[in-house]
Formats: sequence, structure tokens, C-alpha cells
Amino acid sequence: MPEINAERLLSDLRRFAQFGAYKTGVHRPTFSKDDMDSRRWLAQQYEAIGLQAHIDGVGNVFGTPRSQRPSLLIGSHAESQNYAGWLDGALGVIYGLEIARTFAETPDCGTLPIAPVAWADEESHYITLLGSRSFVGDIEEADLDRAVNAYHGQPLRDALREAGLSGVPRTLVEPDRYVGYLEAHIEQGDSLEASGKRIGIVTSIVAIWQYRIVFHGIQNHAGTTRMIIRKDAGLATALLATSLAARFPRIAGSRSVWTTGRITLEPGAPSIIPGKAEMLFQFRDSEIPVLERLDAALRELVEETAAKTGCRAEIERTATGKPWHMDPAFQEAIEAAAERHAPGAHVRMPSGASHDAQVVARKLRAAMLFVPSIGGISHHWTENTDDADLVLGCQVLADAAEAILRSEPG
Amino acid sequence: MPEINAERLLSDLRRFAQFGAYKTGVHRPTFSKDDMDSRRWLAQQYEAIGLQAHIDGVGNVFGTPRSQRPSLLIGSHAESQNYAGWLDGALGVIYGLEIARTFAETPDCGTLPIAPVAWADEESHYITLLGSRSFVGDIEEADLDRAVNAYHGQPLRDALREAGLSGVPRTLVEPDRYVGYLEAHIEQGDSLEASGKRIGIVTSIVAIWQYRIVFHGIQNHAGTTRMIIRKDAGLATALLATSLAARFPRIAGSRSVWTTGRITLEPGAPSIIPGKAEMLFQFRDSEIPVLERLDAALRELVEETAAKTGCRAEIERTATGKPWHMDPAFQEAIEAAAERHAPGAHVRMPSGASHDAQVVARKLRAAMLFVPSIGGISHHWTENTDDADLVLGCQVLADAAEAILRSEPG
Repeated sequence: MPEINAERLLSDLRRFAQFGAYKTGVHRPTFSKDDMDSRRWLAQQYEAIGLQAHIDGVGNVFGTPRSQRPSLLIGSHAESQNYAGWLDGALGVIYGLEIARTFAETPDCGTLPIAPVAWADEESHYITLLGSRSFVGDIEEADLDRAVNAYHGQPLRDALREAGLSGVPRTLVEPDRYVGYLEAHIEQGDSLEASGKRIGIVTSIVAIWQYRIVFHGIQNHAGTTRMIIRKDAGLATALLATSLAARFPRIAGSRSVWTTGRITLEPGAPSIIPGKAEMLFQFRDSEIPVLERLDAALRELVEETAAKTGCRAEIERTATGKPWHMDPAFQEAIEAAAERHAPGAHVRMPSGASHDAQVVARKLRAAMLFVPSIGGISHHWTENTDDADLVLGCQVLADAAEAILRSEPG
Repeated sequence: MPEINAERLLSDLRRFAQFGAYKTGVHRPTFSKDDMDSRRWLAQQYEAIGLQAHIDGVGNVFGTPRSQRPSLLIGSHAESQNYAGWLDGALGVIYGLEIARTFAETPDCGTLPIAPVAWADEESHYITLLGSRSFVGDIEEADLDRAVNAYHGQPLRDALREAGLSGVPRTLVEPDRYVGYLEAHIEQGDSLEASGKRIGIVTSIVAIWQYRIVFHGIQNHAGTTRMIIRKDAGLATALLATSLAARFPRIAGSRSVWTTGRITLEPGAPSIIPGKAEMLFQFRDSEIPVLERLDAALRELVEETAAKTGCRAEIERTATGKPWHMDPAFQEAIEAAAERHAPGAHVRMPSGASHDAQVVARKLRAAMLFVPSIGGISHHWTENTDDADLVLGCQVLADAAEAILRSEPG
């Protein structure tokens, strides 16, 4: 049985959080100096275990076992959101390192090949899920030519050149070389904490359907335009958000979530009736029939609101996707390991957030493990997880990795 | 009886619209080259009638009669909103010019002193109602030091220097020198048009009470945060705007208007539950008890919304004022003139918009006349008024001016 080194794991997590340390969190945007330093450090650690390390053309760090047997890929993304938490993707990256090291040191696990990996830009500084999408062949060179930083506008090509990655080839998945992929991540919500569980076994990663809804009314003077003749696009938006809040709970799934993240009124002046208003709305669920039901209700409410306010409505679905179901055998392996180390303190649950695992799952069997987020906080520098849970999660993932690799025809 | 020259009036209005012509409207921001050119042109026209013309330290253009008798001030503001209509304030400015000229030419009116005026920056490029407020002593030098352009940030002091107004004294009202103030303006709404009237006699200028309402919720991940535990500040704002739209019609006055002009969600990203949301809300009415009733209802709904959403609310009244009632005798003079030239086609009405008249009314008797706006459109380059109404309005104002000046002890 592989027994992880708890002290070394925590020490590595803390060492990794020094790259771009910010308050008790980190600020480590993709391809920043801190991010690239952290990736080179990882490559050194991979080499030190005897793996072949390389950083590919979009910053993914791979530690490749010298064995000819198919290996188990374990990791997550190394960069952070701006001024965000120290764990997030780093947790899964350091788990991959610790498990690879533990297997290398454990006599009867030494021949079970673990391939740690650190993906780049899951966090959308340039392209959402860039590293894992590049790995599965979902990124064209033209995508790289077009992309710019979401916060400061630097072209991705310039950032890659500054990071020393110009001309470096991108590594593409060769499915036969892998048994599958495991990823650990903090939950980023409070379900585990609220139910007293310590391990979440991810059943699926929800689909996000996202919409841009625009109402066109008539821009006019807020003092001289009688209420009765107004076509107020801003009011239409407020009415729609209110109707959605009333209707969706009645038709949503038990785990569905929906959010109005942005409302913009034009021209946005206190004395002008908004002539145009835009709203960004999304919902998430792991079941296609639920997603379709919510889509239909949304379209119906948009039409009702337009009719009620005399505004013209446009609705555009800007992002759509399908839910990704995690590999059932891998889920069982994680669950068995969780039951061994934390009897009764684990639960199967969908992931409401996107993760690299949903991308890798297009080409490889994949599964995910969650550890609790204290207070459900994520993408904020106060994000944290109990040390005991950090250690437990890594041990459970190590056990699951062993079971998965041993079940292979070897 | 003063008989205005309709052709000359229309020709001057069209000449004035050449300063900053934009499509069928004008772009003549305060202190721009076009604006200053238009003010110098006005001063020349005033001089040509035999008035003493001067442009004061904030751009107000005065045409002062050489008579020792108190004069009747007639005008409005000369600048425009950005890319806006050709009439708006320019209408009242050119009416003042035409009436002064007509009186100068009319034998039995030649001794009745008309003082045309063109105020600066009623339209808030730097300071709302700057010119008339400076005239009544409501602007300190420190206000000028602080002010910057609302659109491009240029300090007012720099704009005044470029306009050649540095060191030029500001003209302060000497109330004994004036009988009062008349202002004509386009209605900017559709009440006249909708009721088939051609002249509005303004009874009062409504007060605007304006509010900044902020909800503080909890910013969190839109995928991992269960609906039940959310404290969504954006949703609170939408619920409040919706409740206001339901409650206000039941308690408002017949002419009350209310508007949510801006909603801002923070951070405003599609996948983040807004942790903070701000809303700019205002209402207008000409009766203090109505304003107070709306204020109380707003505060009650803000509290209810906070309680319902678990958000913390702040409400700040950012602008408040009292309604300004127009001089009753002046209103009668306008009404009598309107009845003479357009029997039955005039109506007394409050002004829902702010005007220089509400400022001048602090120091002088004041009244206003409205002409119809086609389709109620204003602050847009398509703004327009029928030529026949343009001529009628000026003739009515000229007659009213004569009656007012003749009623004075001379």
C-alpha cells in the first residue's frame, strides 16, 4: 500500500504557494513570471523522482514515467485566478507530485507508473482550459494567434514568447499510453462542510449553458417621459431576473444552479430611461433533460417580459456544453479508498464548476475527488482547507490510483 | 403689439444650429470651439440691436439694455448635450434675441427693456446649471477649481482658459435691475403632442430626489454555491426594481415619474454570484407630500428586499431639492397670450425636467413656456418641433413679455 508523506505533502503545498504569494493566498496568473517559475520548479521535482519532465508549448508540465506500461495521469492546473486561493488547482498538482514520489519509494508500487501533470490556464486568463484542451487536440494554432489576456489585453503569443515557450511543441494525448486521469480539487462550495463529509467523489461535471439577453426599449428623458408611454429596457431586465428567481426553483433539478452575473443598462445615466439593457445569465446541471427544460422556460420568460414591457428582446446562447460523466470504475476505486480511510465521511456529488477532467474525459477515462472548502470560499485569498483533509484527500487518491493501476492487465 | 418676424426667427434658429451641426441636430458641448463661436455670434447680434453685450467668466452671454428701467431677462442655455437636438436650450436663446429685436423695432415697445441671455452649461458637461447658478451666487471659485468634464475629464479651469475666459469676471444678479425672467424650451416629452396642445404654461419645475442604493451580499462561485445559501446582491437589485414598479403606481401623484437609470453588479462576471450591486434611482414630482410618500415607500422596499435576500442594504439620497413654482402673474400673462394666438390649444403643466428657470427663480420672478416636441424626443439629434409651433411659441412669449413689462410701474 502506498503511504503518502503527510509532512512532505503539506510542506510542498506551502512551498508552491510561495510562487506569487498574496496575503494568505496567491496571485499567479498564467504565464506570469511566478507561474513559469512554479512550472520549472515542478519539472525539477518530477526529474528528481526519475521522471522525464518537460514543459510543452502552452505551459503544460508533464512528468513521464520511463516505464513502457500505460501510466495514470494525475494532476490539475498550476496557475491561479487573480489574487485568489493557495489551493484550488495547486492542490491537485501537488497531489500528483506526492503520489508519483510515494509510488517511486514504495517497493511494491514502484512498477505502477504515475504521470503527474500540471495544466495551464484552466482559469481563463487567455483561453479557458487551454492546457487540457491543447492536450486533447481542441486548440488550433489560430486560436493561439487570436487570444489576448482577459485582464490586460496582452496577446497570448507575446506572453508565450516572454515565457520562453515560442516554438516549443505542444504535447498531444496518445490515448494508448494512459490508463486514465485522476484530478483532485477543492470543492469550492460548502456541500461537504455542511453535511460533515470529508471526501467528495465526483459523479459528473455539470454543463454550463450561458446566455446573453438584450432588451431594446426607447431611450428617453427620465423627467419628461410619462410612465405610461415608457419602454424601459432596464426594467425589463429586472423583471426577467425576478421571474427567473420565481420560476426556476419549481422546474430545476435538485442540484441545478442559475446566476445573473452581469446587468448593464445603456446609457446608464441617472436621468435617462435605459434604451437598451443586457444581461448575462447562466445555469448548470448534469442532466440534459433538465438543461433543456430550463432553456425552454428562460425563452418563454424572455418573451413574456418583452410583451409586458413593450421592449424587443434578443436571446443568444453564448456557451453550451454537455455534462461529462466520470468513469464508474474509477469512482468506485475512489469510494472504496475513501471508505477505508474515512468510513461514512464521503459522498458522491456532481461538480458545479468546470475542471480539466471534463476535457481530458473526451479522450481518457477520468475521475475527480473533492476535499472540503472551509466556508465554501473559493477564488478568494481566504480560501482554505483543514490540513487533516488535505492529507486525507491525497491518501485516498493514492490508494485509488494503486487500485486502478493494479486492475489493469499490466 | 410686438409682432415677431417668423422668417427671421426660423432663419436664426437654423443659423445657430450650424455651430456644431451634427446630422439634423448639433454637437455643441459647453466651452467647445463651436459653443464659444456661437456665444460670440450671439454677442454680435445683441450689439447689433443696440444692447451692451458681454460674455462673463463662465460663458453666460448677456445683452443689457441701455435703459435705466428694470428689464425682463429672456433666454435659456446655448450649449447642447453631446450629439443632441438643434432646439432644446437654443430655442429659448433665439427667442430672447428675436423678442429683443422685435421690441427694438416696434415703435410703442421700444422703451420696454428686454435683456436676452444665454446661460452656460445647463447640460452638465462640467457643472449642472453652471451659468444660472453662478448668476444667482450659488457657485464658489472652489467649485470651478474642482470641476472636470463629465465625458473626457478636462479640468474646467483649463477649458475656461482655452475659451479665453480666464480672469473674466462673473456677472452676479442685481435683482433690482430686473422685472423677472422668462424662458422658453421644447417640452422634451409628448404630453402636448398627445393632447393636441401647442403651448405649455409651466406651473412648477419638479424636484428630483435621487438615490444610490447598494446591496452587499456574498460573492461566490456560480457553479458550486447551492441556491439555498446564496446572498445574491444582483438579484436583490432586480427584486427592488420590480417591487418599485409594482408599488409606485399605487402611491404616486398623477405626474410623478421614477427611473432606475443604472444597475451595476460586482464583479460582473458570468460565473460569479454578485457580492455587491449598486442601483441609481430617482423620482420627480412637484409636490413635497408626494415626494415624501415615495421616499418612505422606497426605504421600506429596500428594507424588505434586504430581509428577503439576506443582503445588507445601504441607501443614500444623493440629490434632493424642492419644486420651484413659477410666478402666477407671469403664468397668467403667458396664458392670456396663448389664448389670443391659439385659443384652447394651451395647457398648464409642470416641467419634469430641470431648467435654468428654477435657479433664476431663487432671485427673480420667473416663468416658462413649452412648445411641443415631435414624438416627445429630446437629447437626440432627431429632436424637432413644427415650424408653426416654433413661430407661435415666440409670438406668445413676446406678447407675454409686453404685458409683463407694461404692468410694471415704469
